[in-house]
Amino acid sequence: MKIGIIMGSDSDMPVVQKSMDMLKNLEIPYEVHIFSAHRTPDEAKNFAENARKNGFGVLIAVAGMAAHLAGALAANTTLPVIGIPCASKDLGGIDALLSTVQMPSGIPVATVAINGGANAALLAAEILAVNDSEVADKLNAKRAADKKAVLEKDKALLEVLK
Amino acid sequence: MKIGIIMGSDSDMPVVQKSMDMLKNLEIPYEVHIFSAHRTPDEAKNFAENARKNGFGVLIAVAGMAAHLAGALAANTTLPVIGIPCASKDLGGIDALLSTVQMPSGIPVATVAINGGANAALLAAEILAVNDSEVADKLNAKRAADKKAVLEKDKALLEVLK
Amino acid sequence: MKIGIIMGSDSDMPVVQKSMDMLKNLEIPYEVHIFSAHRTPDEAKNFAENARKNGFGVLIAVAGMAAHLAGALAANTTLPVIGIPCASKDLGGIDALLSTVQMPSGIPVATVAINGGANAALLAAEILAVNDSEVADKLNAKRAADKKAVLEKDKALLEVLK
Amino acid sequence: MKIGIIMGSDSDMPVVQKSMDMLKNLEIPYEVHIFSAHRTPDEAKNFAENARKNGFGVLIAVAGMAAHLAGALAANTTLPVIGIPCASKDLGGIDALLSTVQMPSGIPVATVAINGGANAALLAAEILAVNDSEVADKLNAKRAADKKAVLEKDKALLEVLK
Amino acid sequence: MKIGIIMGSDSDMPVVQKSMDMLKNLEIPYEVHIFSAHRTPDEAKNFAENARKNGFGVLIAVAGMAAHLAGALAANTTLPVIGIPCASKDLGGIDALLSTVQMPSGIPVATVAINGGANAALLAAEILAVNDSEVADKLNAKRAADKKAVLEKDKALLEVLK
Amino acid sequence: MKIGIIMGSDSDMPVVQKSMDMLKNLEIPYEVHIFSAHRTPDEAKNFAENARKNGFGVLIAVAGMAAHLAGALAANTTLPVIGIPCASKDLGGIDALLSTVQMPSGIPVATVAINGGANAALLAAEILAVNDSEVADKLNAKRAADKKAVLEKDKALLEVLK
Amino acid sequence: MKIGIIMGSDSDMPVVQKSMDMLKNLEIPYEVHIFSAHRTPDEAKNFAENARKNGFGVLIAVAGMAAHLAGALAANTTLPVIGIPCASKDLGGIDALLSTVQMPSGIPVATVAINGGANAALLAAEILAVNDSEVADKLNAKRAADKKAVLEKDKALLEVLK
Amino acid sequence: MKIGIIMGSDSDMPVVQKSMDMLKNLEIPYEVHIFSAHRTPDEAKNFAENARKNGFGVLIAVAGMAAHLAGALAANTTLPVIGIPCASKDLGGIDALLSTVQMPSGIPVATVAINGGANAALLAAEILAVNDSEVADKLNAKRAADKKAVLEKDKALLEVLK
Repeated sequence: MKIGIIMGSDSDMPVVQKSMDMLKNLEIPYEVHIFSAHRTPDEAKNFAENARKNGFGVLIAVAGMAAHLAGALAANTTLPVIGIPCASKDLGGIDALLSTVQMPSGIPVATVAINGGANAALLAAEILAVNDSEVADKLNAKRAADKKAVLEKDKALLEVLK
Repeated sequence: MKIGIIMGSDSDMPVVQKSMDMLKNLEIPYEVHIFSAHRTPDEAKNFAENARKNGFGVLIAVAGMAAHLAGALAANTTLPVIGIPCASKDLGGIDALLSTVQMPSGIPVATVAINGGANAALLAAEILAVNDSEVADKLNAKRAADKKAVLEKDKALLEVLK
Repeated sequence: MKIGIIMGSDSDMPVVQKSMDMLKNLEIPYEVHIFSAHRTPDEAKNFAENARKNGFGVLIAVAGMAAHLAGALAANTTLPVIGIPCASKDLGGIDALLSTVQMPSGIPVATVAINGGANAALLAAEILAVNDSEVADKLNAKRAADKKAVLEKDKALLEVLK
Repeated sequence: MKIGIIMGSDSDMPVVQKSMDMLKNLEIPYEVHIFSAHRTPDEAKNFAENARKNGFGVLIAVAGMAAHLAGALAANTTLPVIGIPCASKDLGGIDALLSTVQMPSGIPVATVAINGGANAALLAAEILAVNDSEVADKLNAKRAADKKAVLEKDKALLEVLK
Repeated sequence: MKIGIIMGSDSDMPVVQKSMDMLKNLEIPYEVHIFSAHRTPDEAKNFAENARKNGFGVLIAVAGMAAHLAGALAANTTLPVIGIPCASKDLGGIDALLSTVQMPSGIPVATVAINGGANAALLAAEILAVNDSEVADKLNAKRAADKKAVLEKDKALLEVLK
Repeated sequence: MKIGIIMGSDSDMPVVQKSMDMLKNLEIPYEVHIFSAHRTPDEAKNFAENARKNGFGVLIAVAGMAAHLAGALAANTTLPVIGIPCASKDLGGIDALLSTVQMPSGIPVATVAINGGANAALLAAEILAVNDSEVADKLNAKRAADKKAVLEKDKALLEVLK
Repeated sequence: MKIGIIMGSDSDMPVVQKSMDMLKNLEIPYEVHIFSAHRTPDEAKNFAENARKNGFGVLIAVAGMAAHLAGALAANTTLPVIGIPCASKDLGGIDALLSTVQMPSGIPVATVAINGGANAALLAAEILAVNDSEVADKLNAKRAADKKAVLEKDKALLEVLK
Repeated sequence: MKIGIIMGSDSDMPVVQKSMDMLKNLEIPYEVHIFSAHRTPDEAKNFAENARKNGFGVLIAVAGMAAHLAGALAANTTLPVIGIPCASKDLGGIDALLSTVQMPSGIPVATVAINGGANAALLAAEILAVNDSEVADKLNAKRAADKKAVLEKDKALLEVLK
């Protein structure tokens, strides 16, 4: 099963890149699109409506400001939709965060941190891993590696501060 | 030309009522619907797409939380769309305000105050009045009446405080 | 596969109830616990560490204020963890929202709206449905029912306003 | 009919420029002024009072901080007044947004996003288009072009990522 | 010299009452009006323009939401203008606070706390007291009395807790 | 009568400079000090306690973060105290604003905009002008000059845009 | 060694009560006072200056709005000062939180949650326990009891939900 | 007794450095570690559980975003835990502040200002000084030096401005 990553504007690419890098590392297939909830609403809707039968397991929506993209996708599929609120210069992303997370009852969006591209990919992988022990093993291995990296930094710090 | 008032949920009725009352006073025809950007996205889209040819001049969207309704309508029409952010209990409407006003370039929403049902109706009337001197006259008369009411309250106050 | 619902304090029960009601409706098995990230950290950790092998597919964490519970569970499992930030009286839940959603890279939490008990359950169901077409069918049926309910309210409104 | 663009200070010029560019593209005539609600209140008032008879159809007010300009214009005309809150360095424009949008009942301001110069112009055009099918056609054409641009970016992206 | 208290709406009366009570206690003459920056802008302007020659020494403006009243008065006089931001139900007064305090360079408003009716009156008295030793004596006496009241409460508390 | 300007730290000097420049322009004498509410509380207190008899008419307090300086001065004098909240890098000055303006009943602080050094000086001048027609004349002249400057910019703009 | 609890106003008593109850449970002596940073600054200062030699080990300051009390005490002692920001009706305590926690370098205040009376007392006890194993034992016992209470609630819940 | 400084990520090092510098100045021994509440929860827990018997008197936790580290340490020790919320680029540290300070009843965290590395070290020293008059003397000497530095800056300023 593959992951769909939809960004609302190509200015969101740096955040999308973090998601792509993480999925590449985890060897999970993905497809990336630029569909705007407001400028190409039909394409966004069609993509979401057909996502399950087109082999997608999870959708990731990346958008800033009054970020409606995640909700617009979620309105048209019962696949899990992960929303990444993007920071804009003026309000630091609090507008996108509230526009993404405060969904009304009936249409959930799984929201991650502002600009949280890596975590959105990890969450998508965790969702696949519920029924895919191979992905689960990769995630567990990544956790172990992350842990080891922290412990090594801790050790190196002790050396430096001696 | 008539005004379309769309609310995302029937819990928004008290705010819609303020819009209806104002339009009734101004003798401007309106039509009210409950269409959710997320639960009935197709109906919302169809309504917006056909609004101009169905005789609507302005749309008013009323929604709370991650309020996408105004944007969802605006994405499907070039009629002016007025957004009323509704206050929810927890965040006082700041979520709905940012979700309504912070629209990306290309798709404007004319946002009024939190729960601002009366002002949304007045703004819709002002838009019609650009080419309708009868409505303009009514608006000017209302302004004069509002002014008179304030001045009478001021006068009454002076009496009370004597 | 079942859903684990963990609340940080029994004062979060009204929000948990909304999750339980939704899961009951969807006939998805669940287990509810009170484990505090701070008062019973070992029990929270043990529950998370063993959740996958104990048959859980998704965990839902419900907590308010400096809501660490979802993160504390997520730190100890690679199962998807859904966080529900609970509103407290003073700050309306913005503290719990930021404490739940702003997770550092590596440990995602799927955050839903403040007090969003029903949506957390729906998101959990969507995650199970990625590989369970029976649950997917139930979710699609619920969506259709929700849609029908909105359209009926719209129709009833037209009658009332005639 | 022409659009009046009033900025409170010449430091708001970059935002005004976005409005002017958009109106030029749409071939809609406009007139630009610097009138401050506080430093030249009489000129602001006179401009608003006479705007309708001077051939203006919509006013756009551009101001930052305690942004009173849109409200000051709206208090003196029943033409639609669009407010653009400008971001200042310290608070990112949340002060200007609330000062512009939270208007009391009776005097609406159609508020767009922080620094939303392009959308203010589009909204002004949409208002004219209510009775001007030529402008409506231009707006619909712009929407189609925007849509095409997104779809081409999406296509180009697929090439790049292949 | 007397104090002018202007409220934007009679719903601000409870806050105005606190100012009146304090000025009565200090035996400072005052005059109260209801003038709206938006509904009766001319009256507000005229009042401010003539305030100095009409014997006013300080103006107090009381308003909520996009509270422009203090700024509108300050734009038309070089008398000190004190602004009291009033809390509204939804945003707790943060809108009125920012609309009152974030004035652009050239037109200051002396802003006090949200709903701070008593402190606005005290500040007005302090301004008069700069050149009026009788008022200064009253203010010093009030300070001494306030201090004594706190110390007596402290003493009473020690008794209670014994 | 002279103005006392007290800053809590020499890092506030750029804001103080704006106050000094304005007072110089108005030919109003002033004295500047660095006294911290927390690091030199006794000096701050002594300065405030003796300010009236030392010939000060108004105090201006300039501080950032948990800005207590204005309140600490106000607690020790019944002279008018103007507070300038300074922006810090992290929170944009909202911390200093709330710490300065939200004073408890009995001890007012006349708060101006974040980093509002020029307006604090103007407000101080307005306070002196209540009883000093020479200062009042200067302020009125400055207002007229400011107005003229705006009108000239407006005229220049019309030329440029022709 | 005893704990000093200072509240800025008797309206803070409900929060103080939580601190007193906790200290009573831990059998740690305390003394309670009402001293205002602004209304009785000398008493607050004297109390802080002499606190160490009068046998106090930790001070707890309880205040709302522009809460300067903790900082005012901390400026006059090198004893640890714990600040409890109190919620006010309008802003939910965010003003008191920022006024208490954002202390400038050199004068720390140990800030606890809004209205966090119990935790302030526990923190004071933890500070005493650094050198008092008897208090440490009591704190550890309380932790164990809290843990047991949560686990019993968890067990009871399982019964109820069976 | 020594101080433990734990940072959640090596990106927090600039803030930690300020704590180390201050402790070095005060000649108080310390130990620094990188332990993440989420990536190395066991190490964080073990460090906290054994901190008292390993000779630590106070722990300082340094973390950003959904900053759980201070709470995670506090959950596993009854030593005083000081939390430093770190600013991230997007929200300026308000997320870390609320995640650190809004702890539930039973598990206090002594929170200092955003990025407040120096004050955290001073607070730790104040805690040790409750029973260590040598440290208390150093703190009092530092206060005197800080005061002298401010007074000298004040004097130098007077020279400059002459």
